[in-house]
Amino acid sequence: MAPPDNAPRTGALEAGGTKCICAVGGDPDEMRRPENRLELPSDAGPQVLVPRIVDWFAAQHAREPLHAIGIASFGPLDLDPASAHYGYITATPKPGWRNTDWLGPFRHAFPGMPAAIDTDVNGAALGEYLWGAAQGLSDFVYITIGTGIGGGAMVGGRLCHGLLHPEMGHMRIPRIAGDTFPGICPFHGDCWEGLCSGPAIHARTGLHAEELAADHPAWHTLVHYTAAALGNIVCTLSPQRIIVGGSVRKAGALGEAEFFARLHEAMRESLNGYIAASAILESTDRYVVAPALGDDAGVCGAMGLAQRRLGDVV
Amino acid sequence: MAPPDNAPRTGALEAGGTKCICAVGGDPDEMRRPENRLELPSDAGPQVLVPRIVDWFAAQHAREPLHAIGIASFGPLDLDPASAHYGYITATPKPGWRNTDWLGPFRHAFPGMPAAIDTDVNGAALGEYLWGAAQGLSDFVYITIGTGIGGGAMVGGRLCHGLLHPEMGHMRIPRIAGDTFPGICPFHGDCWEGLCSGPAIHARTGLHAEELAADHPAWHTLVHYTAAALGNIVCTLSPQRIIVGGSVRKAGALGEAEFFARLHEAMRESLNGYIAASAILESTDRYVVAPALGDDAGVCGAMGLAQRRLGDVV
Repeated sequence: MAPPDNAPRTGALEAGGTKCICAVGGDPDEMRRPENRLELPSDAGPQVLVPRIVDWFAAQHAREPLHAIGIASFGPLDLDPASAHYGYITATPKPGWRNTDWLGPFRHAFPGMPAAIDTDVNGAALGEYLWGAAQGLSDFVYITIGTGIGGGAMVGGRLCHGLLHPEMGHMRIPRIAGDTFPGICPFHGDCWEGLCSGPAIHARTGLHAEELAADHPAWHTLVHYTAAALGNIVCTLSPQRIIVGGSVRKAGALGEAEFFARLHEAMRESLNGYIAASAILESTDRYVVAPALGDDAGVCGAMGLAQRRLGDVV
Repeated sequence: MAPPDNAPRTGALEAGGTKCICAVGGDPDEMRRPENRLELPSDAGPQVLVPRIVDWFAAQHAREPLHAIGIASFGPLDLDPASAHYGYITATPKPGWRNTDWLGPFRHAFPGMPAAIDTDVNGAALGEYLWGAAQGLSDFVYITIGTGIGGGAMVGGRLCHGLLHPEMGHMRIPRIAGDTFPGICPFHGDCWEGLCSGPAIHARTGLHAEELAADHPAWHTLVHYTAAALGNIVCTLSPQRIIVGGSVRKAGALGEAEFFARLHEAMRESLNGYIAASAILESTDRYVVAPALGDDAGVCGAMGLAQRRLGDVV
C-alpha cells in the first residue's frame, strides 16, 4: 500500500477555500521542500489562479518530467467521468468559483498525462491513509473545519463517493438551548458548517478562531456542536478513527491539545455508552485525532491520487 | 450478481425486534411458500426461541439438505471474526436478549455448514440489492423504522461495517420548535429512534402508528424528523438511493404513498438546493422508496448472506 522507494515524480494540487497549494515530488518529504512548492491565496479567483497554477506545473515539468497530476479540491465537484463537466467545481457559494473547470486546463497543458481529481477531504483522507494517522485502517473519516466544513471517508478500503460525494458539513445537529445565533450557511442557516466554520465563528464573535481567548464561550459552542456532528458520523459510518484537520482545530489561545481533550469528553457524553467499542469510549484520544501530516494532508493526498492513477499505491 | 437458476437451498433467519422469520429455499419466491417459513414473536426471548429456531432448521435440513445458513439480526452485534463473542447480540436494551449467541447454536447443530451473520438492516440492504429496489446500485442505504430505527449501507459495492456497524437510529437531529416530548431512547432520549420509532410514537400519542388518524399531528413530526435524519445520511454517505422499510412507513390511515410523498417534500425542503443532484431534487420519488421485497427484505437478505458465503452471489 505504501509507495515504492523510487516513487514517480507527480504534480499535486490542493485547492482549499483559503489557499491553493501546488507541489511536486514523490513523497511527503520531497514535496515539503520550498523549491517544490507554491502557495497562492484562493481569493484571487480561478481566472487568475488556474493559468498561474498550470504554468507553474509546466515549469516544473520542464525542469524534470512529471508522470501524473493529482487534484484535491474544495467542492461540490462533478466526479462523474461520464459527465460533460467532469472535474468541475459546481454549485459552490464561494464567489467566482462556480463552474470552474479544474481538469480541463491540465489535460490541455499536459496531453496524455494521467490526471486524477477528488474532493479536498477525500484527498486528505488518502494522504493520511498512505503516510499519516490512518495507515492500516479500512474505515475512517477525515474532517476539515476551516473556511468550510467537509468530510472525506474511506469505507471498506475505498474512498466514498456515492451519488456525488459526501457533504458532511451540511449535516443538521440539535441546537444548544438558548443559542440564538442563526448560522451563516446560505443554504441551511444553522447546519454544522453554518454554526462552526471559521466564518461562522467570526460572524458569532467578531473574532477569528485564532484570536479567541482561551475562556471565550465560543469554544464550548464549537466543541459541543462538533461532538454532536462527529457522533452522527459514528452512528452513520462506524469509522475506526476520525481525523480532524483544518485551521480551527488549532484553537488559538485554547490550544490544539485542549481542544481535542474537550472534544473527546463531549463525544463520550454525546454517545453515552451506546456505541460500546472500547476504541471510542476508553480511548477517545486515539479515536479522534489531528492529522499526522498537519496542514499537508490534502496536498499529500493529491500526490496519492496521482500515484494511484499510475497504479503505484492503493 | 443474480443467483444462478438452481440456487443452493439455504436457511435464512431474520431476527427482528418484533418477530423472527425463519425460511428455507433458494430464491425469494421459494422462501415465501408457507411450508418453507416459520414466524415467531421475539418477545418469547432467546432461551425459548433459539432452540426452537435451530430445531426447525434441523427438521428442514432433514427433509432436504441445507447448504448454508444466513442470519440477519437486530443488534448491536459483535461482527469481529477474531472476537470470542463473534456472532453475539451485545448491549441491546431489548429485555432478555443481551449477550445472545446466534452463531454458536447453529454451528453446534450444523457442524461444518457455512454460516454468515450481519445486521438485520445490512441483510435487508443485501436482499434489496440482489432482488429488489437497489439492483445495479453500488451505494445505497436501507433504513428500518419499526420497533427500533436502524440503517444498513452498501458503499462502493460492499456492505458497510467499520469499527462495529452503523447505528443510524441513534443520530441526533434538531428538535421542532415547541416539541417537548423527551424521547424514549434509554441512551440518548431524543435521538431519531427516541423520537420516531414505533414505541416512541406510542409513548407520544398513546396510539400505535397504524392506529393514528390521517390528520394526527404526529405524522408531521415523524415526517419532519425522518427527513432531517435522511438528509444527514445524504450529507454523510451520498447514497444513490434510500430504501425505507419497517412497519411505521406503512402509515396506517395516512397510507404508505402519502407518507412517502410527504417525506419527499420534507427532504427537498431540508436539503434546500445544496445537494444539486437531479436524482434527489427532481426525482425524490425514485430516490427515497419503499422496499421492493416488502417485509421480506431482511429474510431474503439473510438468504443472500448464506449464498454469498457459498460464493454464489455478490
